[in-house]
Amino acid sequence: MNNPFTVSVPVRYRDLDPLNHVNHAVYASYLEIARTDYLEEVVGIAAENISFVIANLEIDYRRPVVMGDDPTVSLRVARLGDSSCTMEYEIRVDDDVAATAETTLVHIDPDSKRPSPLPDEIREPIEAYEGLEAPA
Amino acid sequence: MNNPFTVSVPVRYRDLDPLNHVNHAVYASYLEIARTDYLEEVVGIAAENISFVIANLEIDYRRPVVMGDDPTVSLRVARLGDSSCTMEYEIRVDDDVAATAETTLVHIDPDSKRPSPLPDEIREPIEAYEGLEAPA
Amino acid sequence: MNNPFTVSVPVRYRDLDPLNHVNHAVYASYLEIARTDYLEEVVGIAAENISFVIANLEIDYRRPVVMGDDPTVSLRVARLGDSSCTMEYEIRVDDDVAATAETTLVHIDPDSKRPSPLPDEIREPIEAYEGLEAPA
Amino acid sequence: MNNPFTVSVPVRYRDLDPLNHVNHAVYASYLEIARTDYLEEVVGIAAENISFVIANLEIDYRRPVVMGDDPTVSLRVARLGDSSCTMEYEIRVDDDVAATAETTLVHIDPDSKRPSPLPDEIREPIEAYEGLEAPA
Repeated sequence: MNNPFTVSVPVRYRDLDPLNHVNHAVYASYLEIARTDYLEEVVGIAAENISFVIANLEIDYRRPVVMGDDPTVSLRVARLGDSSCTMEYEIRVDDDVAATAETTLVHIDPDSKRPSPLPDEIREPIEAYEGLEAPA
Repeated sequence: MNNPFTVSVPVRYRDLDPLNHVNHAVYASYLEIARTDYLEEVVGIAAENISFVIANLEIDYRRPVVMGDDPTVSLRVARLGDSSCTMEYEIRVDDDVAATAETTLVHIDPDSKRPSPLPDEIREPIEAYEGLEAPA
Repeated sequence: MNNPFTVSVPVRYRDLDPLNHVNHAVYASYLEIARTDYLEEVVGIAAENISFVIANLEIDYRRPVVMGDDPTVSLRVARLGDSSCTMEYEIRVDDDVAATAETTLVHIDPDSKRPSPLPDEIREPIEAYEGLEAPA
Repeated sequence: MNNPFTVSVPVRYRDLDPLNHVNHAVYASYLEIARTDYLEEVVGIAAENISFVIANLEIDYRRPVVMGDDPTVSLRVARLGDSSCTMEYEIRVDDDVAATAETTLVHIDPDSKRPSPLPDEIREPIEAYEGLEAPA
């Protein structure tokens, strides 16, 4: 990825499982840290007002993450649909890719709980940050 | 799925997030409950001796799971490779599918930490349980 | 404890830590399962409407809990104050006490977020269930 | 506390519960982050070689921790017994104390799993760091 949004995620002892490395489910929480930070810093949505639900998650695990590692999570928005947002991630430890991942979020109307189009106040800052072109 | 291996997973308050439903990362732990139970009951591998690592996880989220739901997780082995095992899952609440998922495990030699062929004591009970045909 | 409110808590693989037993912080979540069940079943408060915050938690750990154990959590209300509720717990595995614990909850006014007296609809079902005497 | 060992713990979205603040059980994991860092940095014990179990945990909750807070956890060793180590903690957000806590660890012989005296290689660096006096 080319200068993507990146956060540092300190490993916690509680992240580990009996194999002595970060449990695979915790990777999804690492992605979520990057995503909530992105939504707050780039889009200006506080964590308590998130109006997205996750429709799809895919993670490819490349190598274990252990205590003493200093993982970072990089995120970029790959696609914006009418009401969806697809993000790609890399979890890296030093120069190694520990995992790659993709999530698809769907924007939800808070009252009806149904998918609803991305409002401009969400779409525009993402397009600006990512250098995405607005659809013609 | 046709009479797959199924476990019941009581929802815990700690599984919930600020949206008041089970956090998406926790679904991966729900799958893991079914998987560790399967490995123990079908294959006879205790949780502390698991010699698999996860190579890939994919989850499609269909509907939220909330407190008061009684989710079940069903699992079947879709494919056995030389050193890999692909499992498919359904998380259901009553008659609704809350999520479908797939994981690919890779069997690891505990000493070298490198992929190693599935030994017969793992392959055979899975083939027998799943009605999978052994490769010719 | 004498016929206390008791719930069964299946151990999940994610509860384990590198020592291969249930991580000590997870015991607090086990207590919370009993507490939210109690509040729902005895008092009729759904998890999403809990108006208590925890003021104090104390846990004495007696023995590890491991995969394959079938722990239960028993809970009784030891004291009801003006706005507080003190609960005592036992986590048992078969005939062994794995931990004892105590929590003090404070009832909170949802608007002001300040302590507020226990309303009768909370106090009375607890007193009735526990055989506690109402203060004269 | 007077210049105690202090770590910064970024709040994760997964730490939150439906009340929109850090779940009370997660505070125990925050303490554990400080403790494992202390054991590694001060005593030189890597997380995978921890030979302590927790005998007792007590937490006093003073105020909620929310997303956007930058909590720190301070730790000092209050007492060293023959085979035990009592630590006191403060979780702070800016100038506010969010919680105080105490844990008692017991040193365990890895083979017998029984309490065993603190070896000098653990006792001495703690005494030196904390300015504790060795018993006469």
